[in-house]
Amino acid sequence: MADEVILLDFWASPFGMRTRIALAEKGIEYEYKEENLADKSRLLLKMNPVKKQIPVLIHNGKPVCESLIIVHYIDEVWKHKSPLLPSDSYQRAHAMFWADYVDKKIYSLGRQVWLSSGEEHEAAKNELMGCFKLLEGELGDKAYFGDDTFGIVDVALIPFYSWFYMFEQCANMSIEAECPKLVAWGKRCMEKESVSKSLPDQHKVYDLLMDLKKKILAK
Amino acid sequence: MADEVILLDFWASPFGMRTRIALAEKGIEYEYKEENLADKSRLLLKMNPVKKQIPVLIHNGKPVCESLIIVHYIDEVWKHKSPLLPSDSYQRAHAMFWADYVDKKIYSLGRQVWLSSGEEHEAAKNELMGCFKLLEGELGDKAYFGDDTFGIVDVALIPFYSWFYMFEQCANMSIEAECPKLVAWGKRCMEKESVSKSLPDQHKVYDLLMDLKKKILAK
Repeated sequence: MADEVILLDFWASPFGMRTRIALAEKGIEYEYKEENLADKSRLLLKMNPVKKQIPVLIHNGKPVCESLIIVHYIDEVWKHKSPLLPSDSYQRAHAMFWADYVDKKIYSLGRQVWLSSGEEHEAAKNELMGCFKLLEGELGDKAYFGDDTFGIVDVALIPFYSWFYMFEQCANMSIEAECPKLVAWGKRCMEKESVSKSLPDQHKVYDLLMDLKKKILAK
Repeated sequence: MADEVILLDFWASPFGMRTRIALAEKGIEYEYKEENLADKSRLLLKMNPVKKQIPVLIHNGKPVCESLIIVHYIDEVWKHKSPLLPSDSYQRAHAMFWADYVDKKIYSLGRQVWLSSGEEHEAAKNELMGCFKLLEGELGDKAYFGDDTFGIVDVALIPFYSWFYMFEQCANMSIEAECPKLVAWGKRCMEKESVSKSLPDQHKVYDLLMDLKKKILAK
């Protein structure tokens, strides 16, 4: 029996993008189901009753939730090509550390840069740039975080490249001026079809986020 | 050459307890180095320059950071006994989901119950109890979260059993009255030497946290 793979997702979600990239890297065919996050489907609520969040990968009827866990799962189940995690346990722990770092830092700080103002905005902007500089240091002169190989840290971080334009507009900063290697890495990743086809246009993301910001702040 | 294993830790840290339990489950001998978190050692700052946090496992000179990543690493490197993660990829993703849930929820809510007051305290108390009830539902009638086997979800959660007395005192609530299966599970885990030797006495933790609270609120 062929695998049945369904992805519950939302086009602008950086977490959803991770799963799309991993599936594309492995060449897995799947059914994409766009969720309306203001009116979540019964399928989403049934498949992720604890978090009620996208993305959810449904593999032969069984749900896997949380983007990095989904990427891990995809890498384990479809081993035939494009390994996303190193085979060595120490290298794997090192990669998981940085993927976890991205997971815990970039979205929450990025959200503050997007939505806050005044002192909170300034602090978040500085902290976010500090994170990017740390990541630039970890990247160094490698092609990817996974060295010559595009791996889980790249998959975890590259979706936020689609937020770079928003960061620069909202925080009046140039990521390229401060982190040129990171921006060059982003462009390099975008040359991969698995990435370019999974990431929306930065201006389209910006328009959505500005529209959402008005609605959130009006509440 | 025998493995050199060093653990940088702090006795009352639930994150440190996870790594102690995993090492004990595997029967690994290691050097325990207690950190003074108010004056961190040069070794800690060198081994975890990004987060500057305990626990850090130093295996043959190389650091592994973040408690769940350390537990994962220990399970992969010392495979000879007491598997902490299921061998099946789907079961592994399911276990990682719950370990991640514990990681993201219990400490931050527990900290709010411990340190906040008024409406924030009430909200945190209710949300924390909601988490415990969800976990009680996931546990069901199983002996451990890993079914018959003590596994990574048990390792992730059981350290907070040493905080239960503090929760009950600070929030004037009975966890046993609302989540009897969870408390029975905690007692069952404490019958394992790997757990009982890794967890401090609940009253000792309470005394430390009350003392710390005074210092934090006086700032």
